[in-house]
Amino acid sequence: MKIGILGSGRMGGNLGTLFAQLGHAVTFSYSRSTLRLDELARNAGANARAATPREAVTDADLVLLAVHWTQVEHVLGQAGSLAGKIVMSCCNPLNAEDTELVIGHTTSGAETLAARLPGAHIVAAFQATPSEVMFDVFAARDRALRPSLIFCGDDAGSKAIAADLINAVGFDPVDAGALRIARFIEPFGMLSGVLAYDTDQGPEWAYRFGRLDRLFG
Amino acid sequence: MKIGILGSGRMGGNLGTLFAQLGHAVTFSYSRSTLRLDELARNAGANARAATPREAVTDADLVLLAVHWTQVEHVLGQAGSLAGKIVMSCCNPLNAEDTELVIGHTTSGAETLAARLPGAHIVAAFQATPSEVMFDVFAARDRALRPSLIFCGDDAGSKAIAADLINAVGFDPVDAGALRIARFIEPFGMLSGVLAYDTDQGPEWAYRFGRLDRLFG
Repeated sequence: MKIGILGSGRMGGNLGTLFAQLGHAVTFSYSRSTLRLDELARNAGANARAATPREAVTDADLVLLAVHWTQVEHVLGQAGSLAGKIVMSCCNPLNAEDTELVIGHTTSGAETLAARLPGAHIVAAFQATPSEVMFDVFAARDRALRPSLIFCGDDAGSKAIAADLINAVGFDPVDAGALRIARFIEPFGMLSGVLAYDTDQGPEWAYRFGRLDRLFG
Repeated sequence: MKIGILGSGRMGGNLGTLFAQLGHAVTFSYSRSTLRLDELARNAGANARAATPREAVTDADLVLLAVHWTQVEHVLGQAGSLAGKIVMSCCNPLNAEDTELVIGHTTSGAETLAARLPGAHIVAAFQATPSEVMFDVFAARDRALRPSLIFCGDDAGSKAIAADLINAVGFDPVDAGALRIARFIEPFGMLSGVLAYDTDQGPEWAYRFGRLDRLFG
C-alpha cells in the first residue's frame, strides 16, 4: 500500500516507520525540520522517502493525518484534495497548550475533519495511545495478549484497511462504530494523556478492552 | 463502614450486595418497587436492609449515588443534606433515552453534582463498567490480572476510601486525578456503553489500563 504521512512528529514518525518496516511505501511529509524529515525517512529504510505534503498524498492509498490540531488547516492547505482517499486521523482537537479539547460533546475533531474533507473516508484511530509505546507494542506483537486500539468511521471498506494496519503494528483493533463515536473516543484520548503523561511512571501506557472471559486471554 | 445506596437498580443493587458481602452495613434505598427493594436487601444477607433515602444517608460514612441522571434531583430531594459525606457517584449525565450525554466538554455530571452538594466529597467511579460484569469480577478477584476501574475526585481521603472499596470488589483502582477529569471519564463511559451493549457479545465488558510492561502482569 502507498501511505502518505501528513505530520512527521512522534506519532506520524513512529507509525510511518512501522508501516515502512511492514513493507508499505511510505512518504513522510510536514516536519518542522527538513533535516529531521530526511533523517526519519532514512532511518525507516528502503520503503520510505521524504517529500512535500502534496507529493505524500498524490498517489497514496491511505493518508495518515498526525499533526497537532492547530496545524490541521495549514497542512491540508499544502496537501491539496483528499477526495477518494482513506484518511486515518490520529488528531485530537487539542488547544495549543494540550490541556483541553477545543471542541467536543456535540461534535468531534473527526466529524469536523469529515466536513472539511468531502469525499475523503475518515477513520479515527490512535487517539488514545501514546506514540512512545508504539515500538514496544510492535516488538511484542506475537504475544497472546495485545493492547487494544479503538477506532471508528463511516466507511466499512476504509475501516477494514485501517484495522489491518492497526493489527499489523501489534494492536487488537476494536471497532467502535460510526465516526460520531469519536465524540467519546477523543475525551478518552484526553484521559489516556492524563494517565500516560501526568504521572512519573513513563508514557508507555496502553489499554485493553474486552469481555471479561477474554480480556486476559 | 456504613454505606447508603441511593438508587437500587442494577448498579446500586449489585455493588451494594457486594459491599454487604464484604461486611459493610448497607442500606438500600430508592427503587421503583418496594417489593424489589426488600428482596434485594434480603438476598444481600444479614448486613443489608431496605429503607428510605433519608434513612440510607443519615448515619452513612459513604453514599453510593447510582440513579439515572434524570432521577438525581428527585432522589437528592428525598435524601436531605449530604454535607460531610463521601458520595461515590456512578452517574453519567445521560438523557432519558441513554443515547447522549446532556452535559460535557466544559463540565461534567460529577462537577455539576459537586456544585449541587456543598460540603459533600464527590468521587466519580464505576462510570465505564457495566453492572452486569460486577459479580464475575468479584468472583475472580484473586487472579493476578484484574480489570481496571477509573475514578477521580478532589478529596484525597475520600478517594482513598473509594479506592479501597473498588479494590475489595475485584478491580484495580486507577486514580485519574481531580474531579474535573470526569469530563473525560464520562465520555469514556459512553464509549464503554457502545462497546458493551451495541454488540451481540454480551455486556460483560471490562478494561485494563497500564504501562505496557505491567498491563498483562
